[in-house]
Amino acid sequence: MTVRVGVIGAGWIGKEHIRRLTDTVTGARVTAVTDIDAVRAEEAAAPVGARVLPDGAAVVAADDVDAVLVTSWGPTHAEHVLNAIAAGKPVFCEKPLATTAEDCLRIVEAETAHGRRLVQVGFMRRYDTGYRQMKQVIDAGRIGEPLIVHCAHRNPTVPESYTSEMAALDTAVHEVDVLRWLLDDEIVSTQVITPRATSKRFAHLKDPQIMLFETAKGVRIDLEVFVNCQYGYDIQCEAVGEEGLVRLPDPAAVGVRTAARHSTEVLTDWVGRFRDAFDTEFREWIEGIAAGEEPTGPSAWDGYAATVITAATVEALQSGRVVATDLKPRPAFYGGAA
Amino acid sequence: MTVRVGVIGAGWIGKEHIRRLTDTVTGARVTAVTDIDAVRAEEAAAPVGARVLPDGAAVVAADDVDAVLVTSWGPTHAEHVLNAIAAGKPVFCEKPLATTAEDCLRIVEAETAHGRRLVQVGFMRRYDTGYRQMKQVIDAGRIGEPLIVHCAHRNPTVPESYTSEMAALDTAVHEVDVLRWLLDDEIVSTQVITPRATSKRFAHLKDPQIMLFETAKGVRIDLEVFVNCQYGYDIQCEAVGEEGLVRLPDPAAVGVRTAARHSTEVLTDWVGRFRDAFDTEFREWIEGIAAGEEPTGPSAWDGYAATVITAATVEALQSGRVVATDLKPRPAFYGGAA
Amino acid sequence: MTVRVGVIGAGWIGKEHIRRLTDTVTGARVTAVTDIDAVRAEEAAAPVGARVLPDGAAVVAADDVDAVLVTSWGPTHAEHVLNAIAAGKPVFCEKPLATTAEDCLRIVEAETAHGRRLVQVGFMRRYDTGYRQMKQVIDAGRIGEPLIVHCAHRNPTVPESYTSEMAALDTAVHEVDVLRWLLDDEIVSTQVITPRATSKRFAHLKDPQIMLFETAKGVRIDLEVFVNCQYGYDIQCEAVGEEGLVRLPDPAAVGVRTAARHSTEVLTDWVGRFRDAFDTEFREWIEGIAAGEEPTGPSAWDGYAATVITAATVEALQSGRVVATDLKPRPAFYGGAA
Amino acid sequence: MTVRVGVIGAGWIGKEHIRRLTDTVTGARVTAVTDIDAVRAEEAAAPVGARVLPDGAAVVAADDVDAVLVTSWGPTHAEHVLNAIAAGKPVFCEKPLATTAEDCLRIVEAETAHGRRLVQVGFMRRYDTGYRQMKQVIDAGRIGEPLIVHCAHRNPTVPESYTSEMAALDTAVHEVDVLRWLLDDEIVSTQVITPRATSKRFAHLKDPQIMLFETAKGVRIDLEVFVNCQYGYDIQCEAVGEEGLVRLPDPAAVGVRTAARHSTEVLTDWVGRFRDAFDTEFREWIEGIAAGEEPTGPSAWDGYAATVITAATVEALQSGRVVATDLKPRPAFYGGAA
Repeated sequence: MTVRVGVIGAGWIGKEHIRRLTDTVTGARVTAVTDIDAVRAEEAAAPVGARVLPDGAAVVAADDVDAVLVTSWGPTHAEHVLNAIAAGKPVFCEKPLATTAEDCLRIVEAETAHGRRLVQVGFMRRYDTGYRQMKQVIDAGRIGEPLIVHCAHRNPTVPESYTSEMAALDTAVHEVDVLRWLLDDEIVSTQVITPRATSKRFAHLKDPQIMLFETAKGVRIDLEVFVNCQYGYDIQCEAVGEEGLVRLPDPAAVGVRTAARHSTEVLTDWVGRFRDAFDTEFREWIEGIAAGEEPTGPSAWDGYAATVITAATVEALQSGRVVATDLKPRPAFYGGAA
Repeated sequence: MTVRVGVIGAGWIGKEHIRRLTDTVTGARVTAVTDIDAVRAEEAAAPVGARVLPDGAAVVAADDVDAVLVTSWGPTHAEHVLNAIAAGKPVFCEKPLATTAEDCLRIVEAETAHGRRLVQVGFMRRYDTGYRQMKQVIDAGRIGEPLIVHCAHRNPTVPESYTSEMAALDTAVHEVDVLRWLLDDEIVSTQVITPRATSKRFAHLKDPQIMLFETAKGVRIDLEVFVNCQYGYDIQCEAVGEEGLVRLPDPAAVGVRTAARHSTEVLTDWVGRFRDAFDTEFREWIEGIAAGEEPTGPSAWDGYAATVITAATVEALQSGRVVATDLKPRPAFYGGAA
Repeated sequence: MTVRVGVIGAGWIGKEHIRRLTDTVTGARVTAVTDIDAVRAEEAAAPVGARVLPDGAAVVAADDVDAVLVTSWGPTHAEHVLNAIAAGKPVFCEKPLATTAEDCLRIVEAETAHGRRLVQVGFMRRYDTGYRQMKQVIDAGRIGEPLIVHCAHRNPTVPESYTSEMAALDTAVHEVDVLRWLLDDEIVSTQVITPRATSKRFAHLKDPQIMLFETAKGVRIDLEVFVNCQYGYDIQCEAVGEEGLVRLPDPAAVGVRTAARHSTEVLTDWVGRFRDAFDTEFREWIEGIAAGEEPTGPSAWDGYAATVITAATVEALQSGRVVATDLKPRPAFYGGAA
Repeated sequence: MTVRVGVIGAGWIGKEHIRRLTDTVTGARVTAVTDIDAVRAEEAAAPVGARVLPDGAAVVAADDVDAVLVTSWGPTHAEHVLNAIAAGKPVFCEKPLATTAEDCLRIVEAETAHGRRLVQVGFMRRYDTGYRQMKQVIDAGRIGEPLIVHCAHRNPTVPESYTSEMAALDTAVHEVDVLRWLLDDEIVSTQVITPRATSKRFAHLKDPQIMLFETAKGVRIDLEVFVNCQYGYDIQCEAVGEEGLVRLPDPAAVGVRTAARHSTEVLTDWVGRFRDAFDTEFREWIEGIAAGEEPTGPSAWDGYAATVITAATVEALQSGRVVATDLKPRPAFYGGAA
């Protein structure tokens, strides 16, 4: 069975995923595309033989669409996801699930009422081989109970349009999700410390930032977000437990010795760093749908948590205070105790 | 366009590639399968909706077969490949291209007469990210002219059926191919040194072996083949040039610190080590066929060279002498100077 | 010229330094020893042919003592150091210089009045090859202006007598000194975060702790102190600057591959980790004295700063608040601007 | 007790060791120096307060010389060592012990007749921490019985005076000694392979060379000697056994990330690489003498073996053949079975 996917939003990431579903992932076909820019929709649809539809509702409703991919502008995500739930169709929504906690909760409630998971949120790090190895090590008890996690998320540069709030909303959001999953724990408070800013940034930007998270179990996470670090795209993660630690590997790269230096390349681009994770993410999503199973990736609840935690982090940045995330209790539908 | 592939030989590797062409590589479909064991053929064909055909000739001739995959017993390879050339169909032949130099040359002649490359031989290392990075570094002149290459090819254990000759024919053959490609050079002589044998082997086996190759340009290669090394599957390669060196990376793996040790996992299995290389190999092969292009992977000439060089290495092992490979000059059709 | 050293305090570290001055460092001889326990003094003095003297004052006053080494109980340090200054003799004082800011300042004032540096405080990390390489990289501008430093200080276990306050006073004090030197900057505030405590500790102890320091230039430092980490003695330090980062190396250790693991040993003991640093520290101290030069190691001012900053960190731990260090301005005598 | 050392030969290495015995190693004092160049002798002797004596015999005979250090021109070594044995004084002889097998055997016979070990040969690698860790791992049986050792010995450049024979006599001689010790085994044959020569050498020189050694137990060693490798001074050693392998570490060095590269420094100089080994070598030598013990370092027999094996390697280079080393059986006096 080929899963027929309808795509809402044909910007850079939409096109990237259309290419992925067409050229890289087997068992899927993009059959319908929409975008607020009809030309862009056509450019994305034509090469893969998909139809252009007038809007998201039409994509969700289309007979030849088995599953929906939402890659539109963030504020529109909730509407499309809710439509898909109403139609009983699996939906993959790029982060964020929604831009407000309220919209996220509407999705959670709709999905709960539907009674079966349909929603997956696009946090791809859970599909990265290194993080998966870390989780195996932690879950196997090899480092004992986790106590501290040290992280860094570094980009070489960002454009002027990148704001201080985006450090949480767009950048740290990946760690927020992957750490909740890695630790099987919830983030209950957040704080932001702002070191001396780098001179190599646009003046409005607070960069770097150090975010401090606390989990329900008392694990402390420190996360350096540095989006103008110049030297490369570098993701670091080290979990320290009662008996040992586990560290995310750097990508494998040939070692070169010349001119009194041993060196390996550092990537400069997140696309290369997480290409395999994206591929695995979509491969597993399509396989699950083809098998008639509920999605196992980041859930609507995870999307809600990420939105709330990153919003609290923005508040922490602005206020200079420790901010409680005040997440609602996780419902039993999403694996909660209640 | 979906490339319809007919598969000749449904043993372990045949099934693995059927799975790969079905689940991992887009743009391909296995439509026909044959095997000397009809039950095995049926078991391989049924899950992917392919027909079972009586023999290789039928597979090559089938209307719904655009390209042929040969994964049968080595001595039968030549016949199937020659059939495919005669039919003007692209053919991917697992190593070896043929078990004798004569058969390899018959294929080379047939393909040359056909006037267009159809044959690709299944040496997957050229598709490994690490080796590709090494080639980029070498081709960019970063280490200067290569002078020496140090290699190791280690397997944890081999079964009793593995013979001393297979160290060259089945194991070192991968280095023979990838080094010719990496260096853009030809191997002109070969020698085998036998260290003290490990006690952890079947008694008939000479293990480990050290193979010494010399290239036309004078590069010297030492290759440790150790197929009962116990500790893991470990592939090492270091090229030393006039100005520096480049080394193949170990696969990325999380670092763990416990009990006074920092450790990373060593693989124990070649399947895991080269899974991505196999995927890329087939992805590029299928893409090329879909695009109507000649294959860019290991050619019939490379298959001939590998067969001749490994046979000479067996002779070197048995005689204890340095053996010239006496390869014929590379024809212009295969990029030779002539 | 042989520098004749008088030692005040013959406990473990005193004996260790007596051995070092006798067997490892050339140009020095221990001529006099005292300890509140006369037997212990005798045991330390006899093997090296030194006299036992009744008290620290006698050691300082002795004609055959050119330089004084203070390795007695912390609260007695100030008295001995002040005596040495009064006598105009070089004095090496193990950390802390004194247990109160007031006593440190009395030493600073006495030394300033003397007009020539006599005091060196025993912070050995400045003599570690790795930290020295880091300083060279930073001072050469290779990473640009430093913005953030990530550190970890881990011991396998501590005895029951180790208190939560000692995490700052005895453990983090090493990072406090080495980071002030590495960054050529001052620590202006301190904060302590307490993750979930490890179960592998004595119940009274807060372990691990995360200390957050801010410098005058705005650099932010996070320091994990974890003194029951079980797996080893592990010191980590990574300085992130505007253009790159530099990381302290792990000690060199052979790599071993067995049983599907590549592993290197992690030390379990600070003595092994910093043995070379201690040797270099004393070698340079003795060489300076022999050459009639002022000491170049950690000064009385550095000792004052370390005492104040670690005391503020204890207050931060107890109060849960950010605590300003309120250090006095650095006098010109100690390289300050004033 | 201070060991009073007389030094024969005040060239570069002689001066280096005089400095070491004076400034770095405790318990020793250089009391007498001679050199064929009296000015050079005076320059070496004066700063350390030693006397200049007319010749080696005078140094050996001097009342204020407890132990002799031979750092003169190689062909004169045997005479001085034999003199020292005749005088019953411990003697440290820089490599080679003697330039001919015959002279080495005369020393062996003289020392055997004396009945107590007096001679130590200056092979410092046995004192390198990394090699010592390797030996511990091997001796503990962690890699099982050794089967193969891969080595590389690379220098950035050599002057025009360096000849092809010196690759064995001066360079590989270090591996010859350290491997015999590491493996507790004897080298029985040697062979040299000459890859394409680097263009970055003087025309008369064969560089690089690959030396192949076989031991009595059947271990095979390949050693790349490359003395114009340009990029650095780099020593590699990996021992492969029946159950695993152990690899010499690179020297610890800070990691730097800038401009899309992670890099560590490669040394360019053997002095820095083996400084600590030299220090330990002399420290242990002096301690042994002070304790009245026989030396435990490389013996006259080791010196004999190194001279014979490297001479055979020169013959192998010149003849292109495998050359048996034809060492005499190790006498019981030197730990042999006989």
